[in-house]
Amino acid sequence: MSYFTENRGRYLEELKEFLRIPSISTLPEHKEDIRKAARFVADRLRQAGMEGVDLIEGEGNPLVYGEWTEARGKPTLLLYGHYDVQPAEPLEEWVSPPFEPAIRGENIYARGAADDKGLLLILIKAVEAVMAMRGSLPLNVKFLIEGEEEVGGEHIEHYVASKPPRLAADAAVICDTEMFAPELPTLCVGLRGIVYGELVVKGAKQDLHSGVYGGAAPNPLMAIAEILCALKDREGRILIPGFYDSVRPPAEAERAAWARLPFDEKKYREEEMGVTALTGEPEYGLFDRLWARPTLEVHGIRGGFTGEGAKTVIPAQALAKVSARLVADQRPEDAVARIQAAVAAACPKGVTAEFRYLHGAAPSLVNPDNRFIRAAARAMTGVFGSETVYVRSGGSIPIVGAFDQYLGIPSVMMGFGLPDDNLHAPNEKLYLPNFYRGIEAVARYLDLAAQ
Amino acid sequence: MSYFTENRGRYLEELKEFLRIPSISTLPEHKEDIRKAARFVADRLRQAGMEGVDLIEGEGNPLVYGEWTEARGKPTLLLYGHYDVQPAEPLEEWVSPPFEPAIRGENIYARGAADDKGLLLILIKAVEAVMAMRGSLPLNVKFLIEGEEEVGGEHIEHYVASKPPRLAADAAVICDTEMFAPELPTLCVGLRGIVYGELVVKGAKQDLHSGVYGGAAPNPLMAIAEILCALKDREGRILIPGFYDSVRPPAEAERAAWARLPFDEKKYREEEMGVTALTGEPEYGLFDRLWARPTLEVHGIRGGFTGEGAKTVIPAQALAKVSARLVADQRPEDAVARIQAAVAAACPKGVTAEFRYLHGAAPSLVNPDNRFIRAAARAMTGVFGSETVYVRSGGSIPIVGAFDQYLGIPSVMMGFGLPDDNLHAPNEKLYLPNFYRGIEAVARYLDLAAQ
Repeated sequence: MSYFTENRGRYLEELKEFLRIPSISTLPEHKEDIRKAARFVADRLRQAGMEGVDLIEGEGNPLVYGEWTEARGKPTLLLYGHYDVQPAEPLEEWVSPPFEPAIRGENIYARGAADDKGLLLILIKAVEAVMAMRGSLPLNVKFLIEGEEEVGGEHIEHYVASKPPRLAADAAVICDTEMFAPELPTLCVGLRGIVYGELVVKGAKQDLHSGVYGGAAPNPLMAIAEILCALKDREGRILIPGFYDSVRPPAEAERAAWARLPFDEKKYREEEMGVTALTGEPEYGLFDRLWARPTLEVHGIRGGFTGEGAKTVIPAQALAKVSARLVADQRPEDAVARIQAAVAAACPKGVTAEFRYLHGAAPSLVNPDNRFIRAAARAMTGVFGSETVYVRSGGSIPIVGAFDQYLGIPSVMMGFGLPDDNLHAPNEKLYLPNFYRGIEAVARYLDLAAQ
Repeated sequence: MSYFTENRGRYLEELKEFLRIPSISTLPEHKEDIRKAARFVADRLRQAGMEGVDLIEGEGNPLVYGEWTEARGKPTLLLYGHYDVQPAEPLEEWVSPPFEPAIRGENIYARGAADDKGLLLILIKAVEAVMAMRGSLPLNVKFLIEGEEEVGGEHIEHYVASKPPRLAADAAVICDTEMFAPELPTLCVGLRGIVYGELVVKGAKQDLHSGVYGGAAPNPLMAIAEILCALKDREGRILIPGFYDSVRPPAEAERAAWARLPFDEKKYREEEMGVTALTGEPEYGLFDRLWARPTLEVHGIRGGFTGEGAKTVIPAQALAKVSARLVADQRPEDAVARIQAAVAAACPKGVTAEFRYLHGAAPSLVNPDNRFIRAAARAMTGVFGSETVYVRSGGSIPIVGAFDQYLGIPSVMMGFGLPDDNLHAPNEKLYLPNFYRGIEAVARYLDLAAQ
């Protein structure tokens, strides 16, 4: 019986203890739970043999830092995870209470099981295992764990942007993603970026009655509809001039690998999404559309009357939440400028329209030939017993951009979640075999990355 | 000094007493004020010599009825007004408190001054004056006054729809509209109708993350934008097949009369509305667009995220409040069917779209050659000293349709409000010279309509 197998019971108990802390970062009444979770992480880092364990206080929730840097001449990995979780509502849809971890089948159910407490604990337990077995690590590690990933991660972003010398590293390891399919070890090598803003349209100086003024008054809600339709056609093609100019197409080999991924489009469409047809640029395959092509989406439209019943108002102004996902080599600032120009050009008469940029993140794309990526693939293949696949993610993980921009290091995204883990939803779970294998895979990775 | 001049002081005191009752029909806490206002009206009807004065109780606020029917062989007029008012919020914008009537210059300021307490009192005081001077009326009158005009008027609609024999009349007189301009006696001879409904669009079975699914998931908010743009072009032309087929163009004489109305389009655009350009079908003049052409408007769009900050959701469903104003000879049921067919045809792939009809009202158009209309024009011209103009209104007054449909009588819409009376807004007012002249004009009308 290996060390890892022997310790499974303890790993599970520690995971349960972690999951019992309702460290919900969006709700101020959980401030004390946030601190409790931070202290839990700090204690586990000390238990794993880390030195200089420290809560880094700042304007938000504390960062937890801990390091072991005695492997002279060896590479340094910056290990990232987060101890905060999403709210659990709607509570009535949970089969077991969200902060009372329950095991059913091979899964453990609790808020944060996969996002990200279980995956964060994988990193800590892997380091602890190697330290316990050998008394040292084959390379240097620095843990940087945050507590506000679910509310924007401003504290860590500011901290990383200040380039503190102790964060110097050769690569980051991010344990906050998922495997493409069960039993399929997966590395994520690309993330889409994003620009998010508000399309603000103003018409008359006050709300107008549609009986009295309808036929003469500009309608800001209708103007939003017209502008959106001028920015994107019914097939999903973005009509903003030059928007696709700097899009880098995926290499043929990468596309060919995507085509080999085990994927049932009918199941995805009908069971996962529940729609009659997928949308998006018809010239591109699904993975291109999700991972390698930019998008333009409207997330909400505010203005006028939306209560029960009928009110015949022409609103004085309206607002739409609009974002574009970006892919390499698009730049957020360039995308914003193009959207703003296109909005101005599409603005109908009688109203003013403006795109107010709120925030953004650059897309990122890691070279799969990077030595830290190759080592990760070997480690995962070794533990899971099948070839590691390279995928991208359509979403954005801002910390990856920050590590790239401020620390100049690539991120290795080793994921041990599964697509049906119900992140941000009721009945979040973690597949326990992945929890245990993840610890072994990361432990093996420390050796392979050290070479 | 005439009877009317002698009584001005008393008219004003009674108006103030009426305006002090906060009979806000939208707020349940004013239930007792509503009853107080109803009793006030009933008392004034008795004081005017009406018989059979009665509060008609039903599912909503009481109707007030009173009649004088001793003019055998003479026509009967059904006199309509409402004693309820809009809420007064925002209170901080009132120069004087909304339920403490204050006179500044020649105006009296209070919630309900023009809509409709002042105008309703004109009807009652006119009848009272003739009764006081002669002991009888030259024709028969029946007052039917409601207390929920501001909340939909269901009670009166149901009551009229039951065709009670005592409502038998030759014409209705509605005192709830405005004059086109100060000193310009005005009769409203046309109202637009309306169909109001909800455009409901459904996509995936749950909200989706735009990073993970953007590029493949249908977006119901975008679908609403696409459908709206398919229903109406950027110039304001409705693209629904056949929608204009039954639109009756105004007679050349009517259009010519509109062209003579004193109207400053620049002032309307810049001061009244505060916009840089008017919109609507470029082939039609402004009064055509406001009074004689149908419209399609979106009043609100619900779905997704509209709070502060950024959330990257693709909503599972979205809803738009949409209405069309109708003109003679369009029929609501036909308009709804055409909208529903056009929505189905414009629905993009991956979503379902449905227009759910909520309520409607038929347009109405009175022949200006009707004897009761001609008599009203003569009465107003006589008192105000200038030619009475005929206008239409772009809005809908459902009771006009009910009188037409259930009682088979035309409505004479004599208006004594002014365009700047701030109906439904802070600092509502009534121009007192119009209050006094209105009483005289209606009194004179009773004689002219009797002939």
